Amino acid sequence: METIKVGLIGFGTIGTGVARLLLEQAKRISLKTGKNVKLVKIADTDVTRPRNVKLPKGILTTDYHDILNDPEISVVVQLIGGTGIEREIMLEMLAAGKNIVTANKALLATCGEEIFNAARKKGCSVAFEAAVGGGIPIIAAISESLAANEIQSIHAILNGTCNFILSNMEENGSDYAPTLAEAQRLGFAEANPAMDVEGSDTAQKLAILSHIAFGVRVNWKNIPKVGIETVSGVDFRYAKLLGYSIKLLATARRIKGKRSEHDKLELSVSPTLVSRKSPLGEVKGAFNAVSVMGDAVGHSFYYGLGAGEMPTASAVVADVIDTIVGRTKITFQTLDLFDQEKLPADGIALAAPEDTTGRYYLRVTVEDRAGVMAEIADVLGKAGISIASLIQEDSAEQNAKRVSLIIMTHETTEGAVSNAIAQINKMKCVKTRTMKMRIYG
Amino acid sequence: METIKVGLIGFGTIGTGVARLLLEQAKRISLKTGKNVKLVKIADTDVTRPRNVKLPKGILTTDYHDILNDPEISVVVQLIGGTGIEREIMLEMLAAGKNIVTANKALLATCGEEIFNAARKKGCSVAFEAAVGGGIPIIAAISESLAANEIQSIHAILNGTCNFILSNMEENGSDYAPTLAEAQRLGFAEANPAMDVEGSDTAQKLAILSHIAFGVRVNWKNIPKVGIETVSGVDFRYAKLLGYSIKLLATARRIKGKRSEHDKLELSVSPTLVSRKSPLGEVKGAFNAVSVMGDAVGHSFYYGLGAGEMPTASAVVADVIDTIVGRTKITFQTLDLFDQEKLPADGIALAAPEDTTGRYYLRVTVEDRAGVMAEIADVLGKAGISIASLIQEDSAEQNAKRVSLIIMTHETTEGAVSNAIAQINKMKCVKTRTMKMRIYG
Repeated sequence: METIKVGLIGFGTIGTGVARLLLEQAKRISLKTGKNVKLVKIADTDVTRPRNVKLPKGILTTDYHDILNDPEISVVVQLIGGTGIEREIMLEMLAAGKNIVTANKALLATCGEEIFNAARKKGCSVAFEAAVGGGIPIIAAISESLAANEIQSIHAILNGTCNFILSNMEENGSDYAPTLAEAQRLGFAEANPAMDVEGSDTAQKLAILSHIAFGVRVNWKNIPKVGIETVSGVDFRYAKLLGYSIKLLATARRIKGKRSEHDKLELSVSPTLVSRKSPLGEVKGAFNAVSVMGDAVGHSFYYGLGAGEMPTASAVVADVIDTIVGRTKITFQTLDLFDQEKLPADGIALAAPEDTTGRYYLRVTVEDRAGVMAEIADVLGKAGISIASLIQEDSAEQNAKRVSLIIMTHETTEGAVSNAIAQINKMKCVKTRTMKMRIYG
Repeated sequence: METIKVGLIGFGTIGTGVARLLLEQAKRISLKTGKNVKLVKIADTDVTRPRNVKLPKGILTTDYHDILNDPEISVVVQLIGGTGIEREIMLEMLAAGKNIVTANKALLATCGEEIFNAARKKGCSVAFEAAVGGGIPIIAAISESLAANEIQSIHAILNGTCNFILSNMEENGSDYAPTLAEAQRLGFAEANPAMDVEGSDTAQKLAILSHIAFGVRVNWKNIPKVGIETVSGVDFRYAKLLGYSIKLLATARRIKGKRSEHDKLELSVSPTLVSRKSPLGEVKGAFNAVSVMGDAVGHSFYYGLGAGEMPTASAVVADVIDTIVGRTKITFQTLDLFDQEKLPADGIALAAPEDTTGRYYLRVTVEDRAGVMAEIADVLGKAGISIASLIQEDSAEQNAKRVSLIIMTHETTEGAVSNAIAQINKMKCVKTRTMKMRIYG
């Protein structure tokens, strides 16, 4: 039986899970590949910290060149996050002809084109199932299983930290700050949670999904995003009353071009009211989920753990197996990932955010006096925004002279809503910044 | 660009969808394969009935030999159901060196080994994503994306007809017979619905999933199955009260062997109380869903349309693409599908149904007199079955002298419950056959 040597860069949580699977489940992996798959080198800056895996002697190194310069290592699992030295290491590995398996979404969402071009130049492959949705095989689903479809939309919960915080706010009726603190205490949020809670992590994953589903090249920094810190405990109460949950939703939606116009693509990341009748509305805790609409398959839905040692390692090792048996190479070649020159002539362009359409939830906090409701309704009416339903309630705030208006709109544009809110926020009767969320399902 | 010629056998509902995708979306498929994929021949006994697709002249034939004997056709999509002439045609196609894409679950679940061996002998592949779960890519998920896992269990809703009927019974509080009639009227159930409602279709799909997930060879006829005609409208009422829905659930569950014993596999198809907190409990209408537990990935869940023209065609054409680019060949070779000689020595054996464990829902209809409850409880107690909860209610039947006892048991064995029910059904105070269902989630 042929032996395939594998190197691992990054011996953190996921790296430990990958090492455990490759070392402890060697027989299983050999059955799936027909090869003897051997993890021979693990590089990390910290090789002394104890990890929950028994290692062969001499496997650890602090110098990734031990992997780079070993010509017998054909597959490199790169699990270090970031876009600086991590980019350089990956390009060096590709230049040396190594096939890459990675979970580094930031790097792919930032320098994907450079990395994929470098791989193509050397006839190597880059596999990245673990970069989006952890253990959910969403990259394979979109790039292979749904290949016969024109993808119409993707709606996804891609950040377990945010979903954990939002689920807990919903369940406990608590506000953002104390829930974040609790999540940090429990290890579900990082000490610096900015990348998660501000939506950057989700935007990076959405950029990768959009590349493979729609063939667009988008810098993740250009995806409009709103973080979850904008959501209040009261919003969950109103959402529930109306039959909705609140999720940090990544949205990619094809907008059909009229007549000879090209299709356009709406991309956004924002807290969204998600119907409890939709499978996405029932995704709780640290789980991730992806809802995909294809023109042939209709609605399909994928759910699982989006992070954590073993779920992510499951995706990484599946990629290692695919790389070894040759499936990755085929997929990588046929997908023409991020290859600017092979963009189809009828490609899809990004929609201007203000032109995208949807229904909206607005929470306006106003002075409790006669005529206020009419003034707000007047602004919305003049902006062409039609009201679908309305709840008026005494504000939960201490100042009893305020009331909350919860307005659900009919379909309108982001631009119309933003303009109307800017006007509303300037009104004397409006006491705090108006809360706005899109509605899904 | 190289041209790949495809033949299609069976021009029914799914065949029409496949023809539509291959003919109308040729550009899309060429982008995904890098080849010019051309549907050149469609064979069916009926070539005159109008279908919703525009066909090139001369493409239709009533003689499948026109496909068999065309050496330029390398991929054959075989969409005729059944295990007689269909088996012969498939073996002839494989002997002629054609690569097969099929949705014929009955054939694979009955003669899988013979067909896969015939394919291996000629270096051909057989792809069958569409045979289980329609548009849900569950074959790819289990055989590729979850390859790093030891699968612990599969719980699945695999028959849209049954789920449609059960969902409607639940929603309308109706009984089985009128709901089936309504489903037939709407086209969701066949004139002869036996294969669906008795669980045979589900058992065939479960046999295929079990092959790829656990490496077992099982004749689908040996999978214990209970049909949905056993479920009454009142069962939905009690299930709802207790927080459950009722689904025709396909179950495959690994039972870990103690010490040096091999693992065993529990297989069953039966109406099951499914917790509404589980994603499976919320699957409504004609949708299918599969819940998979892997030892690394944890819980993962897949949902979509399990039948119908375009969802199934989506899976078929994905297989055509995979076959053309070469992924299917790799997967087919590495999976060693149904290859008796390559069975791992530590393979899994089927568990005896009576030894399998679970919690149970029992509905016992008894005479309304003092002491009856004690008699029933005594039988259960002597069988070592412990009661978790109990509801006693006047029977909805006209004879007011009867009451229904709804008993939820703690974990016990199928054998103990079956024996206890046999005794209970013989008691004078018991008025109708006791209803028994497993509980999941």
